Amino acid sequence: MKLYNSNFAPNPRRVRVFLAEKGVAIPRIEVDLAKLEQKAPEYSAVNPFQVIPALELDGGEVIGESIAICRYIEELHPEPNLFGATPLERAMVEMWQRRVEWHLLLPIAQAFRHSHPAMTKMEDPQIPDWAAANRTRALRNMMIFDRMLADRPFVAGDRFTVADITGLVALDFARPARIAIPPELGQLSRWHETLKARPSAAA
Amino acid sequence: MKLYNSNFAPNPRRVRVFLAEKGVAIPRIEVDLAKLEQKAPEYSAVNPFQVIPALELDGGEVIGESIAICRYIEELHPEPNLFGATPLERAMVEMWQRRVEWHLLLPIAQAFRHSHPAMTKMEDPQIPDWAAANRTRALRNMMIFDRMLADRPFVAGDRFTVADITGLVALDFARPARIAIPPELGQLSRWHETLKARPSAAA
Repeated sequence: MKLYNSNFAPNPRRVRVFLAEKGVAIPRIEVDLAKLEQKAPEYSAVNPFQVIPALELDGGEVIGESIAICRYIEELHPEPNLFGATPLERAMVEMWQRRVEWHLLLPIAQAFRHSHPAMTKMEDPQIPDWAAANRTRALRNMMIFDRMLADRPFVAGDRFTVADITGLVALDFARPARIAIPPELGQLSRWHETLKARPSAAA
Repeated sequence: MKLYNSNFAPNPRRVRVFLAEKGVAIPRIEVDLAKLEQKAPEYSAVNPFQVIPALELDGGEVIGESIAICRYIEELHPEPNLFGATPLERAMVEMWQRRVEWHLLLPIAQAFRHSHPAMTKMEDPQIPDWAAANRTRALRNMMIFDRMLADRPFVAGDRFTVADITGLVALDFARPARIAIPPELGQLSRWHETLKARPSAAA
């Protein structure tokens, strides 16, 4: 197996953190986003949608999409369980993973992509109004997550799951997106600090 | 169980089509999007993110997010299998489900939300440049899916899965988004027609 990776993008980090939580190492091939290598013919043959990460299996099959890769790793290495252990818990983990992805990571990433000078080639055209709308949305949704986190240590309940990995990556990505996490959101900050303190955060 | 639904939005349709494929009926509660009922306190208590659908269980738990709901239904009613039967197939189905969702449904929905007069209250502000960028992206991605579909009857391989349900809903939604599916995309149109012809498409 090999993992197509970039250390400068949030989605491959989700997979790296997941692998670190599992204690699994997979050889990596770096894709240089600054050189737009993800759009070159070589990588397009691996992933026609030209996004990273992608996991290439020894048989040549390619699994794209961070969460599909993580779910496959969970099947090969079931412990520690990060996707839920019962039908209801699996549904709840999937729900929270998707909520964090759509309502936190997506607006933060859109604010970044449509405002940061480094993204002019990747987002053409950049649309400043869209960056601004997403900054507003990210801040509103941070407030909702802050409320939700008042009664639980982790976003999907009382234990760490894949949904928290998406949360770590989203909140860390707020900094390059130039979105300051409001200091009054104590629960959100407490969650963020808890996740940053795990050894896997360095992956 | 009860399903919070709207017949005028693409995401609850994904769940209705999934239930139809499973042969499962769940009582529905209609949420009137035209009256912004999804943002009213009553529904916000069900789903703080104010989006539909949501599945309320008899014990009071609420599962939001279409695919989390579908995955829970799959656990209760495993046949016909729509999420994959082996670890590799489950990874591939998840990958294709997400590719259809992110690269087809999302740009089509964004084009709709940021251009259609009916959406002025729900997307405030509407950003015409963002609608245009998504129209371009949707058309480019339709070409990629057309190529991918050349060697398989369904998007994830040789059988119908949840990824096709997202595809049906995305391509049907191109019409109100005023995105014409280019007639030269023969594989995409063949796939769309195959999905529209299934009885579940009426759900």
